[in-house]
Amino acid sequence: MTILYDERLDGTLPDVDRQALIQALRQQLPELELLDQEQQLKPYECDGLSAYRSTPMLVALPRHLDQVQRILQICHAHRVPVVARGAGTGLSGGALPLEKGLLLVMARFKEILQIDPAARCARLQPGVRNLAISQAAAPWGLYYAPDPSSQIACSIGGNVAENAGGVHCLKYGLTVHNLLKVQMLSVEGQPLTLGSEALDAPGFDLLALFTGSEGLLGVITEVTVKLLPKPQIAKVLLAAFDSVEAAGRAVADIIAAGIIPGGLEMMDNLAIRAAEDFIHAGYPVDAEAILLCELDGVEADVHDDCERVRQVLEQAGASEVRLARDEAERVRFWAGRKNAFPAVGRLSPDYYCMDGTIPRRELPGVLRGIARLADEHQLRVANVFHAGDGNMHPLILFDANQPGELERAEALGGKILELCVAVGGSITGEHGVGREKINQMCAQFNHHELTLFHAIKAAFDPSGLLNPGKNIPTLHRCAEFGAMHIHHGQLPFPELERF
Amino acid sequence: MTILYDERLDGTLPDVDRQALIQALRQQLPELELLDQEQQLKPYECDGLSAYRSTPMLVALPRHLDQVQRILQICHAHRVPVVARGAGTGLSGGALPLEKGLLLVMARFKEILQIDPAARCARLQPGVRNLAISQAAAPWGLYYAPDPSSQIACSIGGNVAENAGGVHCLKYGLTVHNLLKVQMLSVEGQPLTLGSEALDAPGFDLLALFTGSEGLLGVITEVTVKLLPKPQIAKVLLAAFDSVEAAGRAVADIIAAGIIPGGLEMMDNLAIRAAEDFIHAGYPVDAEAILLCELDGVEADVHDDCERVRQVLEQAGASEVRLARDEAERVRFWAGRKNAFPAVGRLSPDYYCMDGTIPRRELPGVLRGIARLADEHQLRVANVFHAGDGNMHPLILFDANQPGELERAEALGGKILELCVAVGGSITGEHGVGREKINQMCAQFNHHELTLFHAIKAAFDPSGLLNPGKNIPTLHRCAEFGAMHIHHGQLPFPELERF
Repeated sequence: MTILYDERLDGTLPDVDRQALIQALRQQLPELELLDQEQQLKPYECDGLSAYRSTPMLVALPRHLDQVQRILQICHAHRVPVVARGAGTGLSGGALPLEKGLLLVMARFKEILQIDPAARCARLQPGVRNLAISQAAAPWGLYYAPDPSSQIACSIGGNVAENAGGVHCLKYGLTVHNLLKVQMLSVEGQPLTLGSEALDAPGFDLLALFTGSEGLLGVITEVTVKLLPKPQIAKVLLAAFDSVEAAGRAVADIIAAGIIPGGLEMMDNLAIRAAEDFIHAGYPVDAEAILLCELDGVEADVHDDCERVRQVLEQAGASEVRLARDEAERVRFWAGRKNAFPAVGRLSPDYYCMDGTIPRRELPGVLRGIARLADEHQLRVANVFHAGDGNMHPLILFDANQPGELERAEALGGKILELCVAVGGSITGEHGVGREKINQMCAQFNHHELTLFHAIKAAFDPSGLLNPGKNIPTLHRCAEFGAMHIHHGQLPFPELERF
Repeated sequence: MTILYDERLDGTLPDVDRQALIQALRQQLPELELLDQEQQLKPYECDGLSAYRSTPMLVALPRHLDQVQRILQICHAHRVPVVARGAGTGLSGGALPLEKGLLLVMARFKEILQIDPAARCARLQPGVRNLAISQAAAPWGLYYAPDPSSQIACSIGGNVAENAGGVHCLKYGLTVHNLLKVQMLSVEGQPLTLGSEALDAPGFDLLALFTGSEGLLGVITEVTVKLLPKPQIAKVLLAAFDSVEAAGRAVADIIAAGIIPGGLEMMDNLAIRAAEDFIHAGYPVDAEAILLCELDGVEADVHDDCERVRQVLEQAGASEVRLARDEAERVRFWAGRKNAFPAVGRLSPDYYCMDGTIPRRELPGVLRGIARLADEHQLRVANVFHAGDGNMHPLILFDANQPGELERAEALGGKILELCVAVGGSITGEHGVGREKINQMCAQFNHHELTLFHAIKAAFDPSGLLNPGKNIPTLHRCAEFGAMHIHHGQLPFPELERF
């Protein structure tokens, strides 16, 4: 597969003295595992966004926090950029290494430091896997709510850095809504505590600012998360529709009816067929779209809500509404959804997963718009997404071996994100900006807003050594990228006016 | 009553040319209502923290947003500090005017711009009263959750500036958890949008950073809040205890049992007697402490939870547990709590309301500590507070006409807040830092953290003209205030080691 790599970034970084850095690290941290051979570095060349690759200059795998502190101090003294990485499952290239930078792998910090059932919180090292938190809390009937689909592998440090979401974030919020405290090291290796175990903290809310900052502001060394009581019961309804627009309208109707589902997911026909072929979930393969609506809580409540949702779905024109008969069918319904990405992957040699967010009321129009853009770019797009919170995941199918298809897929992806911005949405719901969407940030924000972002970056990291080239584009890059700024629902370019 | 005023602050501000400013404002904004006479300025000399007073240099009462923008531009050009003010109900002096500054009153922006039941949000001008939002949303069965006790008067702009809470924030969160978007003007009058209507926004989370920033980062011109469906039913349990420590332990037990009450409030004997004398709520006046626990949601759920809470309370040693028999009794139980401050006010010529937050597990120890500190300072303290989220509101009773009592009350208040910090809590739960707790910020944060706050302030307001002297102390002030830094649970001074 063709590899996308933006050489402009490393090109703008000053040269560094690799040998001097290696020598300083070896001398001052003789116990530190340090990788510097080409074949050792290769496995670290990308994160979950494998279309972007770059060999790191050096990989450090510390085991102790004082090593992390010392590494940061040494890199700072040598003016070497540092990219921190957790499990490397991120989908936007936030942990993409730099050829002129050190990759700081935090995966070995796997200890669950404390589960406090009375305060309903867990204190964790940054490398603890997302699912491991809920497993450790299970004996007390508690769990950690955010559940990105990579939850079996992704680590809490990366979840904080990317403000990860998941199927249940409609009801239970993103990572930022489930955090109490983060301990971090500044670019100079200075420890800082953000947030507190109390409900609110005085001063500026640095914890929320830091969450989702994608490694630009500091390196996470400890995370305290909230734990929630596990819902007593969960039920799922499957509704089939003759058009994606009707399904989109039904989503808005459910929310407007005052119901907050645990999850509310949508799949279009291409995704339904792919998932059904792969998983045999029992989906209606002739439907243009299906909705999966999960309701969780106490039994009586869930029962009432199921009835209300069924009525709303029927009024919204569903051709069929099915309540999963038992837990086995519920799990099967979800298995189809959770495996929709690999299922769609079987239809085509390559696919590209987008992650735009839009106001729910815009769902029908944006789905029409995506179909039109796909036609124009002569590519197929499958839609599988968190409909309840307007977080779309269009999957663009392409074949990288066909000349020009990768570039067309990229161009289509960019247009889809710009469409999201144009209707008042944003270019990312839960995957982050990373390297992938750095250009689209120029569409999302104006010059004044970007200047403010840079000022905040400088407040934490005046030397600009932490994860440069991710998340916040330089003003220069946006100028180069062209006058494509669409701000807060204004549509400057004619192509979008058709929607 | 003696007025506390910290003359050091205005002393450090550069002199301004009042006449030139008035002339520029009158010339460029002939329609603007501008108050500049002593008797006109007097009513604006304080906010809800009336112990601190200072006459503003000038008061502007704009009616149109372009006037606000122009005022900011003119003040910026003349290097005149600006303090924005909503309804002026804040309890920490966040809207205390400056003798060398303009007071920008935003109270006339009272329009509810939109209620969107499908997206479950409301778009508001900053002067809309908190309660008016819920009233406007009521026809759709929706409401706005944060409910500070001043909700009948306080405005949403001030709620955002102070990150206001309320009785229900244990379950429904603070203002920051119920916001989607804020439009603001920068110190130079530049408009900026923070957040979006989507679940998440890319870039740094400036919306959360801005919330609770107490007017230091910008002037709020529009707020979009989330609306929630009204709970079907609410029940309240009253439990009596023979000791405040036992009541404190019961609070932790309820939360540990996996129940999230809509509200969980505690009152000690002094507060119980005062409230009972005033409101006749039917409280047990011999109890050392009572808890009020409200459970809301759907009927079956609430019924089950009431039984579980009753069991927990009985096991925790409650001498009596009473479920409000009907809605009238429920309202009466809450009326006692909601009027506890004025009720306690009847016991003494003056009182001083504190607002510290602590981890729930520390409640029994901190209550003992407050009693000991009160004895040492020879003052009475009534405790009435949001026990569920560890947000304490000790009311210090004093008589300002007795020489030295005000100063003793202030000293005791400071010690109580330092105790909160020492056990891992914070100096404010929902009232903010404002002018009142500016010295205690030196206890809460270290030099490095304060430096970061100042860098962030400078990113938004490099000229430092927005609400100077509030929220974030200068490093110089902390140095003057002395070496009283207690950080993250360490106890440097012997007095606190006794707890």
